[in-house]
Amino acid sequence: MPKMNAAQLEAFMAQAFPQMDSLNLRVEEVRPRYLRARVVTSEKNLRPGGTIAGPTMMALADCVTYLAIMATLDHGEAAVTTNLNINFLKRPDPADLIAEARLLKLGRRLAVGDVMIYSDDGSEAADHPVAHATLTYAIPGNG
Amino acid sequence: MPKMNAAQLEAFMAQAFPQMDSLNLRVEEVRPRYLRARVVTSEKNLRPGGTIAGPTMMALADCVTYLAIMATLDHGEAAVTTNLNINFLKRPDPADLIAEARLLKLGRRLAVGDVMIYSDDGSEAADHPVAHATLTYAIPGNG
Amino acid sequence: MPKMNAAQLEAFMAQAFPQMDSLNLRVEEVRPRYLRARVVTSEKNLRPGGTIAGPTMMALADCVTYLAIMATLDHGEAAVTTNLNINFLKRPDPADLIAEARLLKLGRRLAVGDVMIYSDDGSEAADHPVAHATLTYAIPGNG
Amino acid sequence: MPKMNAAQLEAFMAQAFPQMDSLNLRVEEVRPRYLRARVVTSEKNLRPGGTIAGPTMMALADCVTYLAIMATLDHGEAAVTTNLNINFLKRPDPADLIAEARLLKLGRRLAVGDVMIYSDDGSEAADHPVAHATLTYAIPGNG
Repeated sequence: MPKMNAAQLEAFMAQAFPQMDSLNLRVEEVRPRYLRARVVTSEKNLRPGGTIAGPTMMALADCVTYLAIMATLDHGEAAVTTNLNINFLKRPDPADLIAEARLLKLGRRLAVGDVMIYSDDGSEAADHPVAHATLTYAIPGNG
Repeated sequence: MPKMNAAQLEAFMAQAFPQMDSLNLRVEEVRPRYLRARVVTSEKNLRPGGTIAGPTMMALADCVTYLAIMATLDHGEAAVTTNLNINFLKRPDPADLIAEARLLKLGRRLAVGDVMIYSDDGSEAADHPVAHATLTYAIPGNG
Repeated sequence: MPKMNAAQLEAFMAQAFPQMDSLNLRVEEVRPRYLRARVVTSEKNLRPGGTIAGPTMMALADCVTYLAIMATLDHGEAAVTTNLNINFLKRPDPADLIAEARLLKLGRRLAVGDVMIYSDDGSEAADHPVAHATLTYAIPGNG
Repeated sequence: MPKMNAAQLEAFMAQAFPQMDSLNLRVEEVRPRYLRARVVTSEKNLRPGGTIAGPTMMALADCVTYLAIMATLDHGEAAVTTNLNINFLKRPDPADLIAEARLLKLGRRLAVGDVMIYSDDGSEAADHPVAHATLTYAIPGNG
């Protein structure tokens, strides 16, 4: 069982990541070491060219991995991002974005996660990868 | 001589990176392959703990490197971020931030830049590193 | 159908990556955009502590992704590594290593791959992740 | 004063990084948080095309940063690489390589270093960058 459910994670996020507000992020599935969220694409989070900006996807990758840690670990909210690496793969389609975070490692001091972001147009995820990120967090209160 | 001066780069940024608005970014020095900018720290870009958030520093690293490319290359505005890697080194002091971007490579198809972000409290930059990033851009119209 | 089969890829590797010789790398499965290889662990590729060294895993990640590109693309051998990011997750068990490479993007100019390296002790891969890497290659002759 | 001098670091390396043997690495300058080494280019460390291979530069970046930590920290030899990010900037000239490692952070638990590798043909370093890497190490015995 995850430590927090989707509604609790969304409430936490609204408070801690105010810059995510405009993204309409919804947590769709959460279990230990895994979280999937949807960005409902609308006018206000698009830039002139009609796509989500790169910095928005960086923030999204950080946010979903952080929420996955919170869902998995007691006191996960103390985790601090120490490294983010992101590759932009192609421009998003004009559709919702899905971000899937998986924790590859959950050690006493470091957690490492992997995030795939893709356009949701109803077909296979692998056909529509938009960005892929890996992130490391230091876990201060964890021994 | 850079292709665009500080005032031109700031005007461009206000239009292309609306999310940078709240950062009060000022271009302090620009020459080919180099750009230094200052983030004037104020209440509105701080999060509860009193520090600039990680995603803000990611956006900052992307923004200053992109501006350095524009200052160096004709049609640099067509550059597209393909990779960003950032290490967060320590929490910023309650002071202005300085971001220095250097272009390590400027090839026909790819540009690679290096960004150091540090707190400006008047002493040596190396004493106050906050984050360090490397970024790659694809240059579509460049052969 | 892949452009080259396992035996052809192994023969190519022996010639182009002489430093892989001591690894006893065997290509176990190959299809377009995917390749899985096994490192048969033996005395000679272990360092004093009894584990595969970090630099060996970096070379392994580069090698399997490069072979996956060759298996997928005509003239893939011209691909040149431009970026590698690797996270070391835990020390390998004293067992064979499996490296799985997946191509996340195969554009005209850039290919991006994802590599998971894990110990093969017969249980779930996700239980034994050793390292995770992402790599970018420039594809010179590809338009 | 560094904790170990150049001769001590070279002796340690010969024992701990046997794969560096063929590189003829010489530590040219060492001080706390900084180390510069030279790779004397010879027939035996070149691959067919006449350049140092990518995996060799990854190992080089790891090696010099690790030595810089050992030169700076008591018990630095316990440091373990957790992340490496490297960008390959251009093919090396047929000349010696210089690798300069700088420690950007030296915290209780994590160290972060920055490595620039360039060809030494007698002119400015910035004219001949070959690769740039950033690395993170966990420091187990450091509280």
